[in-house]
Amino acid sequence: MKLQIPKGTRDFKPEEAIIRDKIVSTLKDVFEVYGYSPLDTPAFEKFDILASKYAGGDEILKETFKFKDQGKRELALRYDLTVPMCRFVGTNPNVKMPFKRYQVGEVFRDGPVERTRYRQFTQCDVDVVGIKDMTADAEIIALTARAFKKLGLEVVIKVNNRKLLDDLLESVGVKKNELETVILSIDKLNKIGKEGVKKELKEKGFCKKRIDNILVTLYPSPAGSSERLINKTLTKLFPKSEGLKEIKELFSLLKILNVNVEFDVSLARGLSYYTGTVIEVFLKNSNVKTSICAGGRYDNMIGNFIGKGIYPAIGISFGLDRIYDAYVEKNKEEQKTVTKVYIAPIGTFNESLKIAEELRNENVKVDIDLTGKGPSKNLKYANSLGIPYVLFVGEDELKQGKVKLKDMKSGEEKLMNPEELVVFLQEG
Amino acid sequence: MKLQIPKGTRDFKPEEAIIRDKIVSTLKDVFEVYGYSPLDTPAFEKFDILASKYAGGDEILKETFKFKDQGKRELALRYDLTVPMCRFVGTNPNVKMPFKRYQVGEVFRDGPVERTRYRQFTQCDVDVVGIKDMTADAEIIALTARAFKKLGLEVVIKVNNRKLLDDLLESVGVKKNELETVILSIDKLNKIGKEGVKKELKEKGFCKKRIDNILVTLYPSPAGSSERLINKTLTKLFPKSEGLKEIKELFSLLKILNVNVEFDVSLARGLSYYTGTVIEVFLKNSNVKTSICAGGRYDNMIGNFIGKGIYPAIGISFGLDRIYDAYVEKNKEEQKTVTKVYIAPIGTFNESLKIAEELRNENVKVDIDLTGKGPSKNLKYANSLGIPYVLFVGEDELKQGKVKLKDMKSGEEKLMNPEELVVFLQEG
Repeated sequence: MKLQIPKGTRDFKPEEAIIRDKIVSTLKDVFEVYGYSPLDTPAFEKFDILASKYAGGDEILKETFKFKDQGKRELALRYDLTVPMCRFVGTNPNVKMPFKRYQVGEVFRDGPVERTRYRQFTQCDVDVVGIKDMTADAEIIALTARAFKKLGLEVVIKVNNRKLLDDLLESVGVKKNELETVILSIDKLNKIGKEGVKKELKEKGFCKKRIDNILVTLYPSPAGSSERLINKTLTKLFPKSEGLKEIKELFSLLKILNVNVEFDVSLARGLSYYTGTVIEVFLKNSNVKTSICAGGRYDNMIGNFIGKGIYPAIGISFGLDRIYDAYVEKNKEEQKTVTKVYIAPIGTFNESLKIAEELRNENVKVDIDLTGKGPSKNLKYANSLGIPYVLFVGEDELKQGKVKLKDMKSGEEKLMNPEELVVFLQEG
Repeated sequence: MKLQIPKGTRDFKPEEAIIRDKIVSTLKDVFEVYGYSPLDTPAFEKFDILASKYAGGDEILKETFKFKDQGKRELALRYDLTVPMCRFVGTNPNVKMPFKRYQVGEVFRDGPVERTRYRQFTQCDVDVVGIKDMTADAEIIALTARAFKKLGLEVVIKVNNRKLLDDLLESVGVKKNELETVILSIDKLNKIGKEGVKKELKEKGFCKKRIDNILVTLYPSPAGSSERLINKTLTKLFPKSEGLKEIKELFSLLKILNVNVEFDVSLARGLSYYTGTVIEVFLKNSNVKTSICAGGRYDNMIGNFIGKGIYPAIGISFGLDRIYDAYVEKNKEEQKTVTKVYIAPIGTFNESLKIAEELRNENVKVDIDLTGKGPSKNLKYANSLGIPYVLFVGEDELKQGKVKLKDMKSGEEKLMNPEELVVFLQEG
């Protein structure tokens, strides 16, 4: 047996888990102020559910971890949180619409391992089912903007509409049955660049002229402001476009909400199930160049999946792992332990234990030496974990009803009585 | 494709997930006031790690979900959080001792499905590695008592010591090599009763006289107080018992900590890796009769596992699913949504949206009708989700700078200005 972690996975040590927890709880707070409630589904699903042609598609299915239970049932680890939510809506026909839920959970993909690609990663999804109006799209985008503001990360939220993208591509001669493959290629722009997209389209059998037409249309130069592009150029070209109408409605709602987004007519999102608004979020001034959050409207997926009914839906997924990387890049802080104060008894273990319990009654995060180390070893331990305060409890001080608190950053020491200590540690 | 959840698993709907989240965050708060920090490990491990003879043992291994990645590596879903922690300590030789960590995570067992046995369930584990003294055992027990107090659940914490149990069994003629099998049987007392234990020991080849000896020893009648049993009866019988010495130390520390426990000389805990203190927690006055939390000292496991070094350790595992059942049994409360106030615009969508955002700025959990329903349909929706307040925003009231808040419980309606509204909703 070799003591190893599975390939493509990682542990989150306390110093990492503490920050991840902080990010997740910020996201959950934001989801909840918009009235989204938590839902939890199992880490695995029946394989046929994940393999449905209305689910994630072949590319994802290839990377699905499959297994069987003792009853030979075919199961698989979930590769996203959207399909389980669709299955949940299907198996709970009485769920009240509109259904607003969020879910934070691990997802699994048995793919090639890269620096920022793991086989287990965490998604924080928020979706609303049952609203066809653009008001829901605007809410999801406002929520996204608020989340990144609360996290202190500067982002650009890019928005497009799949119906409009279809109109645009059809206007330069892309046929209906070619749309999906063209969109799959142009979605890779950020990864492989304009030349890469050209090359891929050529390999797919498109001639140079058609490719140029597509690219000139998608990347107009100069791009101009979102408003100008929507209200002048595109309105003239596509006066009857349903997608353009939706984009206009969305932008007017976002204006009321005071949320800035960038209209990007080339934004595609790879997955074929999107039907309207698509959203991708990128960091400003960061080494993380890929999108850290993405989503869109998928009005047909749930109905197709269940086999009946109409369930318009829109949602967005926050990639915890990339957001974590960006957060750490920006905030150089490191916190190796939750402990705020470490108690070092000096021949006073029983009394120290009582002080520890009293501080805990006041919700102060306290650790205490349980092994009878001397003061200098205790200081070393507290220092190695970056604990902000060490409390020395000596017999002489105790007789005067005092304890000595050392600020590990400044080195300053202060004699305090228990009441002063509680107030100080609760505030500090 | 049949739309189904996998056998033996379940979804947690918002009304369940909200309470589970509340319980988990209470537990995490308690773990943290004792200076335990979070650790996160993957949901799966290499199969050979989980199959180590120092890990969970054959009975658990039979119930392990196995699979392979595309590189044909054998993997398995974790069946507990203890083995992954041991693997973590092994793969992180620089981890600072004592290492105090907690982990909340799903674990998986492909076993028979019963009413309270699922194939995925959640454990909340807290362990300290690197302390051999009873001070750590006392801390874990104090933390456990505090956790249930905070959850508002009345419990009995039962404590025993495996070394003392060995002494006891050996004193009535059980041989060293018979200890494990006898302990496995007596551990089932709560499940199969005294007669069941007798029957099982008989099947294992013990004669009636030996069985009676074992049982009389384990269930003395009357049991008497923990103190009396320890300090009189057992002290007389086993003056040199290391286990008894540990129990005495532990009880004197628990007295300082003001924590009540019950000494139960028959408490065994099935797993063979326990070496000293064992703990099991039962609810008072509840339909949940099995233990809801259990743990103990395992001084050899990590060292064996890693193949070198000495890592004394003690930990406890809170079973979220059973604690949830007990919590719901006691608190009849139901909360189907996190939303505190639902805004029903009456021809004032844009203004209502602004009010919603302002309330969100103040961290009020707000939902708003995004579909243009009428007042009575909106009331019905809010009522069906049990949202406490509905805010009607009408044009006439808006002109006077007012909005109308309806208390859904009392039916009372109040006209308020925005400032009053914020204060009211933040407090109420």
